[in-house]
Amino acid sequence: MTTRRVCVGGVALGGGAPVRIQSMTTVKTSDVEGVSAEIARLQAAGCEIVRGAVLDEADARAIREVKDRIGIPFVADIHFSPRLAVLSIENGADKVRINPGNIGGEAEIRMVADAVRAHRIPVRVGANTGSIEPDFLRRYGRSAEALVESALYNVGILERFGVNDIVISVKASSVPLTVEAYRLLSRRTDRPLHVGVTEAGTTETGIVKSSVGIGALLLDGIGDTVRVSLTDDPVREVYAARQILRACGLDKDYVELVSCPTCGRCRWNSMALAEKVQEYVKDIRVRAKIAVMGCVVNGPGEARDADLGIAGGDGFCMLFKKGKPFLRVTAAEAEQAFFAQLAIILEEKRQEQA
Amino acid sequence: MTTRRVCVGGVALGGGAPVRIQSMTTVKTSDVEGVSAEIARLQAAGCEIVRGAVLDEADARAIREVKDRIGIPFVADIHFSPRLAVLSIENGADKVRINPGNIGGEAEIRMVADAVRAHRIPVRVGANTGSIEPDFLRRYGRSAEALVESALYNVGILERFGVNDIVISVKASSVPLTVEAYRLLSRRTDRPLHVGVTEAGTTETGIVKSSVGIGALLLDGIGDTVRVSLTDDPVREVYAARQILRACGLDKDYVELVSCPTCGRCRWNSMALAEKVQEYVKDIRVRAKIAVMGCVVNGPGEARDADLGIAGGDGFCMLFKKGKPFLRVTAAEAEQAFFAQLAIILEEKRQEQA
Repeated sequence: MTTRRVCVGGVALGGGAPVRIQSMTTVKTSDVEGVSAEIARLQAAGCEIVRGAVLDEADARAIREVKDRIGIPFVADIHFSPRLAVLSIENGADKVRINPGNIGGEAEIRMVADAVRAHRIPVRVGANTGSIEPDFLRRYGRSAEALVESALYNVGILERFGVNDIVISVKASSVPLTVEAYRLLSRRTDRPLHVGVTEAGTTETGIVKSSVGIGALLLDGIGDTVRVSLTDDPVREVYAARQILRACGLDKDYVELVSCPTCGRCRWNSMALAEKVQEYVKDIRVRAKIAVMGCVVNGPGEARDADLGIAGGDGFCMLFKKGKPFLRVTAAEAEQAFFAQLAIILEEKRQEQA
Repeated sequence: MTTRRVCVGGVALGGGAPVRIQSMTTVKTSDVEGVSAEIARLQAAGCEIVRGAVLDEADARAIREVKDRIGIPFVADIHFSPRLAVLSIENGADKVRINPGNIGGEAEIRMVADAVRAHRIPVRVGANTGSIEPDFLRRYGRSAEALVESALYNVGILERFGVNDIVISVKASSVPLTVEAYRLLSRRTDRPLHVGVTEAGTTETGIVKSSVGIGALLLDGIGDTVRVSLTDDPVREVYAARQILRACGLDKDYVELVSCPTCGRCRWNSMALAEKVQEYVKDIRVRAKIAVMGCVVNGPGEARDADLGIAGGDGFCMLFKKGKPFLRVTAAEAEQAFFAQLAIILEEKRQEQA
């Protein structure tokens, strides 16, 4: 399912490029200092493309200054206003997210399409369950067909006005509907797809809904860029997106920690060590597999394919390295011994992979 | 993909029964008071079947007393010991999780199989990447085929000894491998499947990995019972499992909250209200859809199919009920007005659905 490629600023989307992580600012775009600081935090967390709402002329004009201060492409999100779309493009937006169907008549669409072509930027069009075109809503109800037809209708409008770099989304707050819609869409188009579950809810629920929906699609090879939507700090969205990509095997440059569920077999505090290790390795971009296992039943088996592993027994722990046990320590010494070995392994990996 | 049905205590598994939520105790089974209290907490959170490790004779004998104190079926998890398996069964285990391949020779397997048949309980057999039978590991490597063949080999042993109520699992800590293995397995058998990602890691990572893996399978109709494995309090596993079922549309008796991602368009503190609403409705088993939307762009569209919705503007909020706006309030009054309406709606729903 290789899609066509478009470029958002310097970032390739689709056509075999890595799946890109997006998020959206919460600070008003016209607050240049504030929004740039927020974008810096997002980038540090792993965000590769950022979108900001353009609500008024001040926001549109601020894009130029914001772009001077940030290190990732900026997408302008505009509803209803062709004037703000053009102004955003003229001020350097790397992509616009608009639905031509809600931007006005032929003259307005032409105006925006001309600006898009002149600046050679892509457009994202999208349908979500709240914005299905009335025609399709009547014909298909609130369904996958309605979402896909509605999105493709908007794509068709842009195509008629000569715009060809188009990214598409079809989001619903229902996960099964989202997945069904994207599966249908991916059979209908080879344009790159922006994948997400919309209005996914508060943090915990939202992470689960986004993981199920985005994850199921990515495992099927559908999706060129992802946005996790949370009613929370957008940095949390980026972390969740990274974790989803990693779970799907699409980001391998990280320290994977496998750890046991706690169970009655567990005779030492593996949970505390696992949490500490997870926090320690969170932002390390080195490919390694580390195992913290509660007991000898599953521990050695899993730790066998880990670069470094530890499994607990009654009052002692066994460390494994490259598949072989090499150090037996008391439970009291375990943490210190493990972190010492972890530092060595990660440094070795860093040099290997440099 | 309808599977055969087995019964675990009074709980039907497979054959069109609802997908069941499982978890595992962390307190030693022989600590009757402690483990019963933990199981009560798990049940309150939504756990329908609980598994506990049986490490020694004291654990096996304690099952009888534990069962007297709990309200859900108890599964005994035994490795290597046919004697503990039989003792667990004789003491009332509603199901045993064993791999006959690691329990001994023909005489030992026959002993366990005889006890299983005499007490008419099911058995779960499972392969995970740490316990693939050496033969299959050599032949297929650490692959989906190896997991499936290894599990079916153990199923075959039980069948030869006359055991027929069998639940199967094929877990890996890799999500793509887990999903591939279960998809393959579901084409090879119509026995009920216990689905999970093993050693999924610490809480945040584990929830994402479990959501992606279990969710992708459930969306395909694969899975009769699920276990989320977290290195954390097992109550968290149960909450995560519930959220996954809900995300997949498999548990509809709850209050679904749709809420906006925060974005630059948001002019009021919808996040704070959404969090309060989520906490308030967490354990309410009534079917309703509630929307807390940041702005008028997506808000009204989504809130249209919600039983109660709120969307924010500049200094005011609009409440929607049964699809129609009915109350405009100041931002300061919004929370109180919304909770008052929420209580009314939920009571109406409770009566409708009683």
